[in-house]
Amino acid sequence: MEKVNLAEKFGRFEDHWAPRIVGELNGQYVKLAKLKGEFLWHRHEAEDEMFLVVRGQLVIKFRDRDVILEAGEFLIVPRGVEHCPAAEEECHVLLFEPVDTAHTGGVESERAVDRQEWI
Amino acid sequence: MEKVNLAEKFGRFEDHWAPRIVGELNGQYVKLAKLKGEFLWHRHEAEDEMFLVVRGQLVIKFRDRDVILEAGEFLIVPRGVEHCPAAEEECHVLLFEPVDTAHTGGVESERAVDRQEWI
Repeated sequence: MEKVNLAEKFGRFEDHWAPRIVGELNGQYVKLAKLKGEFLWHRHEAEDEMFLVVRGQLVIKFRDRDVILEAGEFLIVPRGVEHCPAAEEECHVLLFEPVDTAHTGGVESERAVDRQEWI
Repeated sequence: MEKVNLAEKFGRFEDHWAPRIVGELNGQYVKLAKLKGEFLWHRHEAEDEMFLVVRGQLVIKFRDRDVILEAGEFLIVPRGVEHCPAAEEECHVLLFEPVDTAHTGGVESERAVDRQEWI
């Protein structure tokens, strides 16, 4: 049972769209990711997903609107809702999601790098 | 589906040790709380609990040691582990816990104010 310093953990990796696991509780992972550019359109059929922006700005695109998240803001994307995260400049996010979530919602892509790696 | 700004939500209440709900996903609540002083010793038999410090400093006391959390740090207290949160000055924390968690772990106390109130 060790505390986690977010800045220290973010300093451990540089690649984008490759979430790292930093905690687990009640069947949920806490993950950190660095995002830059546009991801891909996807949905999670059975899991809600939370994006908390720690640094920078994240745009979560939906089919009918965009939601712009600044540092200190979060959005919960309900299961089944198609979305596409995008960031013009690198942003740092904390994610909460069930242990068994595939981060592209099962969409096949070379962007779908999720090693389920603890740091 | 609306984004949540943490600072704006923290501005909506002043009382200590009275968590407010600001999000729900996958059977978990995201809560915000302002803490000052010492809470009470308790454990949760069936739930892990996450404390992420947004502002200030939080000490989580365990029977054998203290863990000091600064802003940008979190700790997950595993189920069954007795703990006592304390803050010399007011601190702001984000909590992540199952929807059915009683925040004192069932210990009866006038400190056990948990209205399950959304803000």
